[in-house]
Amino acid sequence: MKYRIEKDTIGEVKVPADKYWGAQTERSRNNFKIGPEASMPHEIIEAFAYLKKAAAFANHDLGVLPQDKKEGIATVCDEILRGELNDQFPLVIWQTGSGTQSNMNVNEVIANRAHVLAGNQLGEGEQNIKANDDVNKSQSSNDTYPTAMHIAAYKAVIEHTIPGVTQLRNTLDKKAKEYMSVVKIGRTHLMDATPLTLGQEISGYVAQLDYGLKALQNTLSHLSELALGGTAVGTGLNTPKGYDTKVAAYIAQFTNLPFKTAPNKFEALASHDAIVETHGALKQLAVALYKIANDIRMLASGPRSGIGEIIIPANEPGSSIMPGKVNPTQCEALTMVAAQVIGNDVTISFSGTQGQYELNVFKPVMAANFLQSAKLIGDACVSFDIHCAQGIEPNHKRITELLDNSLMLVTALNTHIGYYKAAEIAQTAHQNGTTLKEEAIRLGYVSPEDFDKWVDPAKMVGEL
Amino acid sequence: MKYRIEKDTIGEVKVPADKYWGAQTERSRNNFKIGPEASMPHEIIEAFAYLKKAAAFANHDLGVLPQDKKEGIATVCDEILRGELNDQFPLVIWQTGSGTQSNMNVNEVIANRAHVLAGNQLGEGEQNIKANDDVNKSQSSNDTYPTAMHIAAYKAVIEHTIPGVTQLRNTLDKKAKEYMSVVKIGRTHLMDATPLTLGQEISGYVAQLDYGLKALQNTLSHLSELALGGTAVGTGLNTPKGYDTKVAAYIAQFTNLPFKTAPNKFEALASHDAIVETHGALKQLAVALYKIANDIRMLASGPRSGIGEIIIPANEPGSSIMPGKVNPTQCEALTMVAAQVIGNDVTISFSGTQGQYELNVFKPVMAANFLQSAKLIGDACVSFDIHCAQGIEPNHKRITELLDNSLMLVTALNTHIGYYKAAEIAQTAHQNGTTLKEEAIRLGYVSPEDFDKWVDPAKMVGEL
Amino acid sequence: MKYRIEKDTIGEVKVPADKYWGAQTERSRNNFKIGPEASMPHEIIEAFAYLKKAAAFANHDLGVLPQDKKEGIATVCDEILRGELNDQFPLVIWQTGSGTQSNMNVNEVIANRAHVLAGNQLGEGEQNIKANDDVNKSQSSNDTYPTAMHIAAYKAVIEHTIPGVTQLRNTLDKKAKEYMSVVKIGRTHLMDATPLTLGQEISGYVAQLDYGLKALQNTLSHLSELALGGTAVGTGLNTPKGYDTKVAAYIAQFTNLPFKTAPNKFEALASHDAIVETHGALKQLAVALYKIANDIRMLASGPRSGIGEIIIPANEPGSSIMPGKVNPTQCEALTMVAAQVIGNDVTISFSGTQGQYELNVFKPVMAANFLQSAKLIGDACVSFDIHCAQGIEPNHKRITELLDNSLMLVTALNTHIGYYKAAEIAQTAHQNGTTLKEEAIRLGYVSPEDFDKWVDPAKMVGEL
Amino acid sequence: MKYRIEKDTIGEVKVPADKYWGAQTERSRNNFKIGPEASMPHEIIEAFAYLKKAAAFANHDLGVLPQDKKEGIATVCDEILRGELNDQFPLVIWQTGSGTQSNMNVNEVIANRAHVLAGNQLGEGEQNIKANDDVNKSQSSNDTYPTAMHIAAYKAVIEHTIPGVTQLRNTLDKKAKEYMSVVKIGRTHLMDATPLTLGQEISGYVAQLDYGLKALQNTLSHLSELALGGTAVGTGLNTPKGYDTKVAAYIAQFTNLPFKTAPNKFEALASHDAIVETHGALKQLAVALYKIANDIRMLASGPRSGIGEIIIPANEPGSSIMPGKVNPTQCEALTMVAAQVIGNDVTISFSGTQGQYELNVFKPVMAANFLQSAKLIGDACVSFDIHCAQGIEPNHKRITELLDNSLMLVTALNTHIGYYKAAEIAQTAHQNGTTLKEEAIRLGYVSPEDFDKWVDPAKMVGEL
Repeated sequence: MKYRIEKDTIGEVKVPADKYWGAQTERSRNNFKIGPEASMPHEIIEAFAYLKKAAAFANHDLGVLPQDKKEGIATVCDEILRGELNDQFPLVIWQTGSGTQSNMNVNEVIANRAHVLAGNQLGEGEQNIKANDDVNKSQSSNDTYPTAMHIAAYKAVIEHTIPGVTQLRNTLDKKAKEYMSVVKIGRTHLMDATPLTLGQEISGYVAQLDYGLKALQNTLSHLSELALGGTAVGTGLNTPKGYDTKVAAYIAQFTNLPFKTAPNKFEALASHDAIVETHGALKQLAVALYKIANDIRMLASGPRSGIGEIIIPANEPGSSIMPGKVNPTQCEALTMVAAQVIGNDVTISFSGTQGQYELNVFKPVMAANFLQSAKLIGDACVSFDIHCAQGIEPNHKRITELLDNSLMLVTALNTHIGYYKAAEIAQTAHQNGTTLKEEAIRLGYVSPEDFDKWVDPAKMVGEL
Repeated sequence: MKYRIEKDTIGEVKVPADKYWGAQTERSRNNFKIGPEASMPHEIIEAFAYLKKAAAFANHDLGVLPQDKKEGIATVCDEILRGELNDQFPLVIWQTGSGTQSNMNVNEVIANRAHVLAGNQLGEGEQNIKANDDVNKSQSSNDTYPTAMHIAAYKAVIEHTIPGVTQLRNTLDKKAKEYMSVVKIGRTHLMDATPLTLGQEISGYVAQLDYGLKALQNTLSHLSELALGGTAVGTGLNTPKGYDTKVAAYIAQFTNLPFKTAPNKFEALASHDAIVETHGALKQLAVALYKIANDIRMLASGPRSGIGEIIIPANEPGSSIMPGKVNPTQCEALTMVAAQVIGNDVTISFSGTQGQYELNVFKPVMAANFLQSAKLIGDACVSFDIHCAQGIEPNHKRITELLDNSLMLVTALNTHIGYYKAAEIAQTAHQNGTTLKEEAIRLGYVSPEDFDKWVDPAKMVGEL
Repeated sequence: MKYRIEKDTIGEVKVPADKYWGAQTERSRNNFKIGPEASMPHEIIEAFAYLKKAAAFANHDLGVLPQDKKEGIATVCDEILRGELNDQFPLVIWQTGSGTQSNMNVNEVIANRAHVLAGNQLGEGEQNIKANDDVNKSQSSNDTYPTAMHIAAYKAVIEHTIPGVTQLRNTLDKKAKEYMSVVKIGRTHLMDATPLTLGQEISGYVAQLDYGLKALQNTLSHLSELALGGTAVGTGLNTPKGYDTKVAAYIAQFTNLPFKTAPNKFEALASHDAIVETHGALKQLAVALYKIANDIRMLASGPRSGIGEIIIPANEPGSSIMPGKVNPTQCEALTMVAAQVIGNDVTISFSGTQGQYELNVFKPVMAANFLQSAKLIGDACVSFDIHCAQGIEPNHKRITELLDNSLMLVTALNTHIGYYKAAEIAQTAHQNGTTLKEEAIRLGYVSPEDFDKWVDPAKMVGEL
Repeated sequence: MKYRIEKDTIGEVKVPADKYWGAQTERSRNNFKIGPEASMPHEIIEAFAYLKKAAAFANHDLGVLPQDKKEGIATVCDEILRGELNDQFPLVIWQTGSGTQSNMNVNEVIANRAHVLAGNQLGEGEQNIKANDDVNKSQSSNDTYPTAMHIAAYKAVIEHTIPGVTQLRNTLDKKAKEYMSVVKIGRTHLMDATPLTLGQEISGYVAQLDYGLKALQNTLSHLSELALGGTAVGTGLNTPKGYDTKVAAYIAQFTNLPFKTAPNKFEALASHDAIVETHGALKQLAVALYKIANDIRMLASGPRSGIGEIIIPANEPGSSIMPGKVNPTQCEALTMVAAQVIGNDVTISFSGTQGQYELNVFKPVMAANFLQSAKLIGDACVSFDIHCAQGIEPNHKRITELLDNSLMLVTALNTHIGYYKAAEIAQTAHQNGTTLKEEAIRLGYVSPEDFDKWVDPAKMVGEL
């Protein structure tokens, strides 16, 4: 491989000749061979492109960056945003906890690429646009990286999580309405209970997702606040006056999202409670999705020796050894995603506690876990929606069979004959393997006419 | 010990003669000898008293419970609320996951106590007020226990968490303002960085607590929704029309808190996402408090071989072997509480996923962990406030000594001579053990006059 | 309340006149009003009694403590071990993270109680036995508290966890053997699969518990190592030569457990990896118990609309509204315990990471969570064993009904006609609601004789 | 893109014409668009290659697979092991929880590739070696996937975790010995305490890693047990007699690792406690590594306003804004890895609880999290070792300065003048800003000669 020599404040480094990155990126590449290459989430790089461009614009407006440098920087940022420089960001999550070298990676790529776009050879001649003094002007890793975290996280929630969950929520809402009159047995403690309708059951899932989405929305205000302008420790050293609000406004404009400058930059660098907060809502959604997916696989279990009250799509052969088997695989993918998100929440909470003085240096691990959760939830909901939820249908025959047989219909007698006599009827029927009606009459507690009038599953499900 | 015989639908049970509880409570006592006795949180019992009284009022209003029974029930509920029957609730957390026997414990105590208050002997004669048919009228364990969870949780947040955190927040805010001009060295990555003021540093803590309190407030709407009226599976079987809103209104009236009926009772029984949601915010506060307490103990470390920039109160001898040692004990208590809350969050999230069909049967463990977190945070913040935060004072001598010596003041030169020359000055001073000024002049990059003008810590902290 | 004045190195404190504790205990009581009083686990106090007595013996043997002081200390330790001084330990978990004041609480109670036993009045006269100089001789909180943690933890595992889990394991093993020939349908992905026997199914649970017990045993060596002798920072300052091994030997003798001195005292003070390690095994057991309990409640679900392949004891009425309902309550208690232990593991792991320099100051929270887990698992297993596992019985009628109907018996045909034809048979039977045999013959793939020979559930379960 | 038609039991599927995978792989690709493509860990694919080859050998030995098929299968397995077919495994973690389609992916690739190696065109002609009937012979996804999990996990621990941790452990051990006589101040509660040597301090880290490695070794026996031979539900249906031990022996031979057949296949399919168990030990190592890395960054903090007792290598410029700043970046990477592993442990524990009946369907998420942890720990330890630990050096000047100044040297006086007088000396020196010696003499408690004899830091560190 061919190399060129790059320099930083520590000295010279050999860099692959055809790469735009510089000395600091290369040092980090060599010093942190931990896990797969280039694991720093691409969304973070993209967010950096937004913020570097916004910083160039703000710096220019405020008179500290000339027009040509602003344009040079912005042009490369746009290339990054179009995905044209994807192979220029080789660094990993497991680097310095401030993400300093990923910030420098972006600075170096922009500076070197601008140098080339200006007609020069990579590694030759004096650069007009300098990585630290120009691209990073009015910035520090300590305020850029958390800004990139918030941009990437906010976008992932808006572009992946919310649309995915909403799509599933809408399908379930449609199913809830469609099956609102399908009376079935209820189950509590996994045991037969009083009836409800399939639509009511599903409406509970819809409510869970609605609460989850609302909880997620509640967190977005904090997440929309950007650290940029705080520089090294939050004081805004080396930034021109008015910079922080202006740069946030440019980011809002470029991303079309309601970003604003954080009112307290010290909090924004030293803690990442906004990430903790929003991921808490993602975790709540994971909890909800787990319950929903697990219920659906239990309701669909069978085909002959399970519950079998609903039918879900058969998407693929379920077994390499058992011919004809079909499994609730979408439920499994979704519950595995939920398990991942619940673990990620611990990583994020733990990391969130460990800020020290003016900086939290668990930024990359927090960003990576957050983005994984936000995207997985979105993807898994879409997958579950298309390949499972949309195809849910009641198995009317099975539903009726299980409903009619149930002993817990006896509950309807409570208000007529009292809890104790009702219990006696149910227990006797259970012991004798008979029906409630038989025993109710035999025990002399209810007349056949009253029984039929009082014990009517359709009347036991309340107003629909 | 003397016993009397009580009965339930399964048969007869011997109950301690002097206790108001009945057969079902006693069965649960015998069947669940797990952990210390009476571990079911008292707040849950108290919440049950509110809801049983509210149910009696609502049932009476709706014509299904006569005046004398309403009054009999309400009288005993008031006794419970006054703490007069505290020794009547012996059950543990680790019972049935719906808390059924704790609901029955309350029902039985109310029925038996009312029987005695009506002039009868415990265990003798026909009861006018019956545990299931009257005290539990229009109710099920499945809707009463989650209602009690929400009442107890909401009250704990309002009465413990929010006041405790707010008290600490206000003290820190006062300190932030008081020390807003005390310039000190900043630290990032634990390494010397550019200066900020002690007040700015503390303002970051205040911001964390403000965000945490806001996040907590955001969750209260969900938590204010009550399951009561859903009965066994959420359909409201065996409740009179209008009962759910009426009973919620009575609970709101009795507790003076804004409770309302849950719009979807299926969600309210089968999931406990509201508990997950609010505890998520408690966890966020734990994360914030951890950072704050850990910073304070690091800043106060010493007295001679640590950081020592602040002084905190010496509350007790710190060592049984090292004479004269004083430790940051309030920080330790608070960080231990944070560790507990972060673990509790996992228990609660896990439990939240495990609802099956119409019921989540992890109710008591969720309630117990939630209440522990909410109260511990409140108590620990008050303790920390009184015994530590209020006494925080800057160690001006030490602060000045560390500030003046710092190499990172060089950052102020970036905008004048560029990052690379500034780095050379800092590195040379570091190697030679000299000052920045000496090296800046020796290297010929800055005149003595410019150095003094440009490198002024007080100008490096931004607008205060 | 009446008070007397006690002193420590900070000054005078008013202490309740009738209590043996002194100034430092009282300071901690006043400074840490966090959570319920006296929450420091009693097992820790008891462990302190063992170690204080052992230290007195070792100090005497090594010539640094006279006979009368040794005896005075030992006498009070024995009183503590007999539970006679239980109301003398009012401190909470949420105190200094080294447990210093709990160490001093024990020191003070021993000194004052010995003073009284020697015929003096509490608070009057010069003490012969001094809390710091005698009771705490050759000790520091920093080595006593972790020693107490290990003693208490080891005892809880030996006395609660292992016997409880073993009892349940033995019952399940008996059931596995008893039902080894009861052929039933298997289920994978909750869907019907090839058959196995009920005994085989239960044998998997036994294997889980055996692995869990073995994993737990593997950790005990580390847990048996005691920090005592390290004093303040691990160097053993102020201890006589040979003290550490001698004191560990006395503790081993008094507790009848194989304690030994830790070879590296620095590790023993600054980290609590032994607690992390053993609790990891407790968590593994919780994971296993969860699976077992959840399976059992699913297998027992019904009685008419669930799986219903096994019958478990009906221990209490299951519902306050649904008459005659019986629930798998022991499964619920056990799974709630598992959820608690899994959360406790996070608290313990988090706390374990937070040692700083020579000391980990999360000792009390680690101890409390560990002891809760160890005891809850033990208690819950015993409860589950007595009230559920021992009563498990197969529902032969239901088992046969579900087995005979199953389509997955088709798997036996794979090796005769290939996977694809077998799949066609199963799918056709599923679509037509017919039997495998009917379709196998109709499709011409198998003769009736071969079908009966090849598709025999009893032959599909392997060697028993 | 060009396609060919492939079939499975559900019907026809279009597959990219140049890929070896078949219908089931393609279905899974289309049905599970969750997260990045091909996220199923490559180690799992490799493990499948080992087991498919071993199964072919065992099947042949036992007379159920002809020689040519055995060879055909083995040849392709070897290609997979040499990494020649890496682009043939496009599936994701978030698929069916049994990993069925990843098993089929391997089966299909082997069958199709063997077909081509035998001189045929992909997608044309009758296959001699069939995916289900031959490659998957005597197997099910349910026993192959967990077998692949154990193989991959065991290898990752042996090849990554243990060597990496051991390398770091050995460096630290060398440093501990090298600096065993460098006396420095100790710190407890972050506060100045009695002295110890730098070597003693580091020896505690070595002990932590030794315990962690031992704990990890303890788990390997369980992890070495393979599910293979259990097939669909653990009964071994459709396997020839003796197959399970034979296939395990071949796997042991091919991998050169001590794999053996699991004695209870029901446990091996339905639970993954071995994964839970070994990951518990990985988590313990993460806890230990966190403590070590955090200590090192605190000890190295400065350079002028921190602790600064050790010097660690300066590997890269630490700040994009603060010139000359150097940070403890390897500590940060390692602590972020620890945070990840602690979260992964929750995902794994959660998933471990959720087996249902005969199968745990959280296999891929457990495998992925395990492998990430095992490899990250190994990589991060190597990185930390090379770029940090090997370069640790004491800053003797700073160490001496902080030691000599310390008030806690007073502890050496306890055994001569008692704890109370010693405390008075320390407190007075603290208040007056004087030395211990000055105050000891002034108070008349110790003569100058005794002071110098008694208070000698070098004598306070015990035997080295």
